[in-house]
Amino acid sequence: MIKTISFIGSGNVATQFAKAFHAEDISIVQILSKNFDLANELAIQVSAKAIAAIDNLDLSVDLIIIAVNDDFIEEIANSLNSKGIVIHTSGTIDIAVLKNCSNNIGVSWPIKSIKKEHSINFSNVSCCIESSNTETKKDLIDLFSKISNKVVHLNGKQREYLHMAAVITNNFSNYFYGIAEEITSENDIDFSILKGLINESTQQLDSFSPKEMQTGPAIRNDKKVIKKHLKLLENNPEYYNLYKFVSESIINKYHG
Amino acid sequence: MIKTISFIGSGNVATQFAKAFHAEDISIVQILSKNFDLANELAIQVSAKAIAAIDNLDLSVDLIIIAVNDDFIEEIANSLNSKGIVIHTSGTIDIAVLKNCSNNIGVSWPIKSIKKEHSINFSNVSCCIESSNTETKKDLIDLFSKISNKVVHLNGKQREYLHMAAVITNNFSNYFYGIAEEITSENDIDFSILKGLINESTQQLDSFSPKEMQTGPAIRNDKKVIKKHLKLLENNPEYYNLYKFVSESIINKYHG
Repeated sequence: MIKTISFIGSGNVATQFAKAFHAEDISIVQILSKNFDLANELAIQVSAKAIAAIDNLDLSVDLIIIAVNDDFIEEIANSLNSKGIVIHTSGTIDIAVLKNCSNNIGVSWPIKSIKKEHSINFSNVSCCIESSNTETKKDLIDLFSKISNKVVHLNGKQREYLHMAAVITNNFSNYFYGIAEEITSENDIDFSILKGLINESTQQLDSFSPKEMQTGPAIRNDKKVIKKHLKLLENNPEYYNLYKFVSESIINKYHG
Repeated sequence: MIKTISFIGSGNVATQFAKAFHAEDISIVQILSKNFDLANELAIQVSAKAIAAIDNLDLSVDLIIIAVNDDFIEEIANSLNSKGIVIHTSGTIDIAVLKNCSNNIGVSWPIKSIKKEHSINFSNVSCCIESSNTETKKDLIDLFSKISNKVVHLNGKQREYLHMAAVITNNFSNYFYGIAEEITSENDIDFSILKGLINESTQQLDSFSPKEMQTGPAIRNDKKVIKKHLKLLENNPEYYNLYKFVSESIINKYHG
């Protein structure tokens, strides 16, 4: 059972996980960050000790969570040697990059756009767990189940595909919401009209598949409306091309 | 005050509006459709009379709602001559196509993907009203406020832009949800993980703007992850190109 955790990193994910576990009375021991002030800012919130040098890391904790930019995970892992569990929190990095730092390694990737400054309740956030052995799997599932009701065990290949699918659903859709917000604001229309539409539609995903829900000019192959919308966008080449490309992709998919 | 309504059309929008007004004890007089069986199917549900010829339309009703495919609105309007109000329900067609059929014309466009077979509660669906004069505006707002708490008055230009923005938010996003559903199902991953993510994210739109919410590899200009995802899609040129195009558009927008 995991009772003590240290974090490498003090960014969005480290901050939110550390606060969530601290609220569950799990002991957060150390926060390591090259930037001591940032480490300290988080450490104060979770009654931990801030450190800035990896040599000062206490390797006897039950779990070390490496929550740093993807590019630095492997390098950090290669300078660790722990008897406890070591995990990273990335959706895309292979578990194998941790293989030199412990026999008990894993991943816990929270499927959510996480920002430091938002307040996050993990209970409805899916945490995707991967692990190098059964014991570690059990420990990680037990631990993350304390903060999330949606702990899922996936293999590395599944996590890769799920990450890509999450980018498509979340980041791409959100980009479109931003474009729509610009268009409405430029035309003195209350964006909350569209927010209502978005919420209505996404709630319907509980009852219908996206394919059943697909409507609009592209799936009808309604060239007249598409042309009209492109005309409205002709002063904005970026959005013009995007509208055209996505519409054509929908047409190809359903009429190709 | 509008007490009697007839519908031209018996499709998705006609069906849902007729049922909603019928439930509010407003008298639905006639349902006109070239296909008498379809007209009759709806007429039975709303205690109206089905007709198949426009010559049999009783022009003395308070409101005629033309809810047909965009391409036929103008032609139908040109064969009508009513003393009551005549409106269409399209997001994209100009109110002026109705100018020959009455002095009191308008539009009521419900911002929602409407399908006949779904059960719809209009109370949270925005209805965008446009009208040719103040009296008609009042009558339409009063009427549609009986079924919707979100009646908005917009001019024609605003409605055009809002329709385009609605296509971008709703149809495009839904297309991406469908792609994600395919990807997860092909990899034995429960799509409901992503549904949770979608709902979490869209609910946050109440507190944050889409621009504040934008995360993911493209806004970080993280070429490594984008390349990885493209590799996963290399057997599907349609989705490969789409992922690439949208990612590049996000990069252009935020790093261009």
